[in-house]
Amino acid sequence: MNKLIERTVYIISDSTGITAETFSNSILSQFDSIRFNQIRIPFISCIEKAKQVVEEINNNAIQYQQTPIVFSTLVDPIIKNMIKNANGIFIDLFGTFVEYIEEKIGIKSSNSIGRSHTMNDTEKYRNRIDAINFSLSHDDGQFIDQLNKADVILIGVSRCGKTPTSLYLAMQYAIKAANFPLTPDDFERKSLPSTIIPFKPKLFGLTIQAERLSEIRNERRPNSQYSNFKQCQYEVLESEKIMNKEKIPILSTTNKSIEEISTTILQQIGLSKNLIN
Amino acid sequence: MNKLIERTVYIISDSTGITAETFSNSILSQFDSIRFNQIRIPFISCIEKAKQVVEEINNNAIQYQQTPIVFSTLVDPIIKNMIKNANGIFIDLFGTFVEYIEEKIGIKSSNSIGRSHTMNDTEKYRNRIDAINFSLSHDDGQFIDQLNKADVILIGVSRCGKTPTSLYLAMQYAIKAANFPLTPDDFERKSLPSTIIPFKPKLFGLTIQAERLSEIRNERRPNSQYSNFKQCQYEVLESEKIMNKEKIPILSTTNKSIEEISTTILQQIGLSKNLIN
Repeated sequence: MNKLIERTVYIISDSTGITAETFSNSILSQFDSIRFNQIRIPFISCIEKAKQVVEEINNNAIQYQQTPIVFSTLVDPIIKNMIKNANGIFIDLFGTFVEYIEEKIGIKSSNSIGRSHTMNDTEKYRNRIDAINFSLSHDDGQFIDQLNKADVILIGVSRCGKTPTSLYLAMQYAIKAANFPLTPDDFERKSLPSTIIPFKPKLFGLTIQAERLSEIRNERRPNSQYSNFKQCQYEVLESEKIMNKEKIPILSTTNKSIEEISTTILQQIGLSKNLIN
Repeated sequence: MNKLIERTVYIISDSTGITAETFSNSILSQFDSIRFNQIRIPFISCIEKAKQVVEEINNNAIQYQQTPIVFSTLVDPIIKNMIKNANGIFIDLFGTFVEYIEEKIGIKSSNSIGRSHTMNDTEKYRNRIDAINFSLSHDDGQFIDQLNKADVILIGVSRCGKTPTSLYLAMQYAIKAANFPLTPDDFERKSLPSTIIPFKPKLFGLTIQAERLSEIRNERRPNSQYSNFKQCQYEVLESEKIMNKEKIPILSTTNKSIEEISTTILQQIGLSKNLIN
């Protein structure tokens, strides 16, 4: 067993700090010999709160006898300076690049606080909520009305990853993603469910390795016909045959994250909606 | 009307580029006099693909007679260098900070590619999917079995933001977030639904301004009793009375993004689960 070095990481933001947290995660994952203890401190928008954060950083440095790493997306110069002067390795996530871009394009930034996650764009917000509601109500072929309004309809066998992907596309990109299961009934008829045939250009097929599918189904219904390897193998094979026959794009979800699956779908269907945040 | 300056922005990644896209969005939002046309180019993992990207950047610079901004999370030094030498304002999102941290902590990074969104942590991935399934099946009080397994149970009137928040908490933080509606029946009895009383320590109340609630409900069922302002006012008031009486934490969702609502809930209930990505 390797002994991992530990280090505290603070993520300090005047807004939620979620963007900074995700981003710092990616940066820190490049240091795989260190175990980071990430602490996100959101909504630091006044001097009083900033004082408490400085105290926490300084106490942490004393307690662990090493300076913590401090990622900041603070914009207010007074608050930012307070945190910068605490006993941490200060990383100015926004400032570093905002200043660089200002210099390169010759335009000053507006230096406004917490713009990334506010409701300044009501329409975008509403589109996102609409997409989430749409994806929810069109999950697993539940609701087939308004399928014509879907941006994409994911199809595939039960538990191949349709639901989380639909919800992610809605949440992150305001995409109306319906999903529809392919079931043994369809495999016997060797054709798509009649309900979705009119929407063929919107269909996108997900598939998965039979071994993995069997594992996933086993967690849900152990030792059932549903989770039996042979059954999974049959369903996967037959679903792929239908997709191939109908010339529907296919993506294997095995060993892919929801983000990777969603990104590939967006690329292939050529949807270029804007990111929500 | 202000005439906005336009500029193309590329986000180039060897993985999905979603983290970089979200982050660059936050940075660019600081320049509100410019309209950015953001193009995310994911999965750039070989020289052949990198060549095409260089060509696209160079063509864009000629077409619009200005250098586009290029955000990169590329790690492979050869590919990164190719993109860096294209005709763009190159911003090395990872490298900039990874090098700085290496220097400060005296430890070299592992320089591995696309670590942020891979399935290297199967358990984390499974927890996330489990949380999404849990939140889905426990949406709107549908399924009341296993409420004891919930990390948090959001309560509030219909359309106050419970569903998107539950799904976001599950998707982003693998938190099992159930949600349960407070309805006119409860307001007549002036008490919590009996189903959720045993789980009082897990309850978190959402509320909303009656005006905003009426607007939201009107989009769903125009000119109905359900969306009537007086009805909304009554429901909001009564739901807040119950929450106050039962000493359940309350958060108003009016003018808050899903990220802001989720962050406040995490702060208040003291859940410190790790970010998923």
